[in-house]
Amino acid sequence: MTDYRRLRVALLGAGAVGSQVASLLRQHADELADRAGATLELVGIAVRDLDAKRDVELPHELFTTDAETLIVSADIVIELMGGIEPARTYLLQAINSGADVVTANKALLATHGPEIFEAADQVGAQVYYEAAAAGAIPIIRPLRDSLAGDRVQRIMGIVNGTTNYILDRMDKEGAEFAEVLADAQALGYAEADPTADVEGYDAAQKAAILASLAFHTSVPLDAVHREGITAIDKGMMDAARNAGYVIKLLAVCERLATTDAEGTPAESISVRVYPALVDREHPLASVHGANNAVFVQAEAAGNLMFYGAGAGGVQTASAVLGDVVSAARRHIAGGVGVGESTRANLPVVEIGQVTTRYQITLEVDDEPGVLATVAGILSDGRVSIATVEQTVVGEDAETARVVIGTHKAQEQDLSDTVDKLAASGVVDRVVSVLRVEGD
Amino acid sequence: MTDYRRLRVALLGAGAVGSQVASLLRQHADELADRAGATLELVGIAVRDLDAKRDVELPHELFTTDAETLIVSADIVIELMGGIEPARTYLLQAINSGADVVTANKALLATHGPEIFEAADQVGAQVYYEAAAAGAIPIIRPLRDSLAGDRVQRIMGIVNGTTNYILDRMDKEGAEFAEVLADAQALGYAEADPTADVEGYDAAQKAAILASLAFHTSVPLDAVHREGITAIDKGMMDAARNAGYVIKLLAVCERLATTDAEGTPAESISVRVYPALVDREHPLASVHGANNAVFVQAEAAGNLMFYGAGAGGVQTASAVLGDVVSAARRHIAGGVGVGESTRANLPVVEIGQVTTRYQITLEVDDEPGVLATVAGILSDGRVSIATVEQTVVGEDAETARVVIGTHKAQEQDLSDTVDKLAASGVVDRVVSVLRVEGD
Repeated sequence: MTDYRRLRVALLGAGAVGSQVASLLRQHADELADRAGATLELVGIAVRDLDAKRDVELPHELFTTDAETLIVSADIVIELMGGIEPARTYLLQAINSGADVVTANKALLATHGPEIFEAADQVGAQVYYEAAAAGAIPIIRPLRDSLAGDRVQRIMGIVNGTTNYILDRMDKEGAEFAEVLADAQALGYAEADPTADVEGYDAAQKAAILASLAFHTSVPLDAVHREGITAIDKGMMDAARNAGYVIKLLAVCERLATTDAEGTPAESISVRVYPALVDREHPLASVHGANNAVFVQAEAAGNLMFYGAGAGGVQTASAVLGDVVSAARRHIAGGVGVGESTRANLPVVEIGQVTTRYQITLEVDDEPGVLATVAGILSDGRVSIATVEQTVVGEDAETARVVIGTHKAQEQDLSDTVDKLAASGVVDRVVSVLRVEGD
Repeated sequence: MTDYRRLRVALLGAGAVGSQVASLLRQHADELADRAGATLELVGIAVRDLDAKRDVELPHELFTTDAETLIVSADIVIELMGGIEPARTYLLQAINSGADVVTANKALLATHGPEIFEAADQVGAQVYYEAAAAGAIPIIRPLRDSLAGDRVQRIMGIVNGTTNYILDRMDKEGAEFAEVLADAQALGYAEADPTADVEGYDAAQKAAILASLAFHTSVPLDAVHREGITAIDKGMMDAARNAGYVIKLLAVCERLATTDAEGTPAESISVRVYPALVDREHPLASVHGANNAVFVQAEAAGNLMFYGAGAGGVQTASAVLGDVVSAARRHIAGGVGVGESTRANLPVVEIGQVTTRYQITLEVDDEPGVLATVAGILSDGRVSIATVEQTVVGEDAETARVVIGTHKAQEQDLSDTVDKLAASGVVDRVVSVLRVEGD
């Protein structure tokens, strides 16, 4: 065996991902050393509870509750604790003590990313976070490096496995949301408290990270428009299927041609998470189960898609270990860390300024002139109709269902128009309003 | 504008990709400077013929026929000439004069990769080559870096757009190979001399590059088994379709559990390019037209797929510019280049040792006992039958067509067995023998 330089690796957290990282670091030690050009010595694992049960067996003497002592002794610190504190404090300590850091902590990066990247820049350290968006799928390096010479126009990502699993089963089985969620919880695909997933919080964190990378702009989490999937019901799924669509929770990051306050053309971006109609022929429509995929449209490269497992302990561990090898190679090569590129500094617009196509489903009185009234309200509201389909529903044949596909319209116009429709007297019920993405 | 350090960029070659790179470097100069943290100054473009017509308009004063003078003055050299010489000599000169180099030259890397990487190691330079495999698709960084902590088990790649375009049209239109090829040539999807594409030479070069990265082993081009698609006819496409398959030209890079000369378990790899049957439900089956996709199976990460445009001037330019930005960031950060990881040094086995499933189509006399004879020959040859389908063909009803699906069998056994079937007296014709990939 080659005699490599020895690098001290500290691990913070030994949950589903952490325990797999520790196990693989030990199991493949020789191979990883050959790849990194350095021996990666796992010197300790900081945990809150020394006696907690772990997913894999690890030597007892590696565990410690003294994270701070462990951190200052390390060349590379892997943070897999999750949450904001003490993860943030530990990462900053690691950076300031001269270590490179690897993290999968999307919540932390989406909220304190600039602070952490700035701290790393100050001391020339590098922050690696391939596992923080879309799990095992290599998407950070492609956006950060491979597409650094291109201009990303749009990203549409299925970045939350739990919601994709639920929507996919609702689509395939014609089941209701609550029913599939309960089953997903029983099977371990959804947490006991599913809020972070089904309300889109997890996807919004990942969207902030992806948009920051793609647009070279620091995107704060609160600039991400977020809607979850709890309002999606069987009726909406069935209607989508009949119209050749599937409903997916998408993280959409988009470059917009807008104008500034003086009316001068100036680019801006939109970052939003919501359930949307996707054409069944679109590559994203064929992403099933708990898988993730990120569809990227770039000016020169055209359409790209990255597909794989979005979560899972061992899958995510793969991304973390790739980062650890990169960190080790950088230690050997020397040089300072390469900071995040945020100099484009594009403004993030409110959801009201975004334009997409929509599908509006209404229940109306089945009387002469109703459709004309509806069409008039849309036209007055600057919402242009692309398709209309009217079907009679109900046994009394007094109610009709109208499905309107719009051309691209501005969200604010659309939203105001839907309010007017609801108050118009001819509309009994606004059944659903869904955006159509992917063209 | 920020006052950045100025880096001198030299471009060798101004063909379809080179002219786009030059154009984008100039067009997006400010933006690229912000991303790289350095001004990327295109100082010259070396060409053979100063008066040749270019795809895009570029200032005449940038062009020179004196590549060597240009190279020694540059911080970053982009080689987009193609071919082995003088590209090899120029790249080595660039490396030895202290430049980082960016190349899309798959032929050169597949044949002289080790020499070039070794030269870069000697002086601490870095070689970037994202555009050398699968065009615009970011696949080099994911394999080199993101999956560096994982163990890749298998890669199945559609890495040649021309052959995928031809096979896709044959599949969709029920057309013959020659007919679609002629059309592809007329449309510019295939070259006047299509040998490099249709005989699999281009795919074999990319397979050598992908396998080298995935298995941390320097894979020489002549270790890649190569078959083209010229023998694929309408009958084979139709039969594949009827059986739920599609025929794709695949680059397969596989890790094998073999034994060494003493019988000790020792890993090896297989790298091969051939047309294969792919299940229509497999993600690779939905890669249409001239698109490329690389499906990766890794021990921890599971299944990943990378999809996008495999060729095209501006698409490939995206990958090249990503490399240029990376090279610039490295120049600013300092440190030496990170060498290629080839220390696994796994042996590449001959095609005869590879095991896959097969589909064998035979025409036999429609007589009692024939199927028993065929089954006996297969069994004697250690080829286990999974499925058999016999249909009577021809007006006289004297000939039957037998389609045999095998379990995994060793290529050498299969090939010997097919020879025995052909010579058996009961087989009129071996219609086709195709591997089945993707399980």
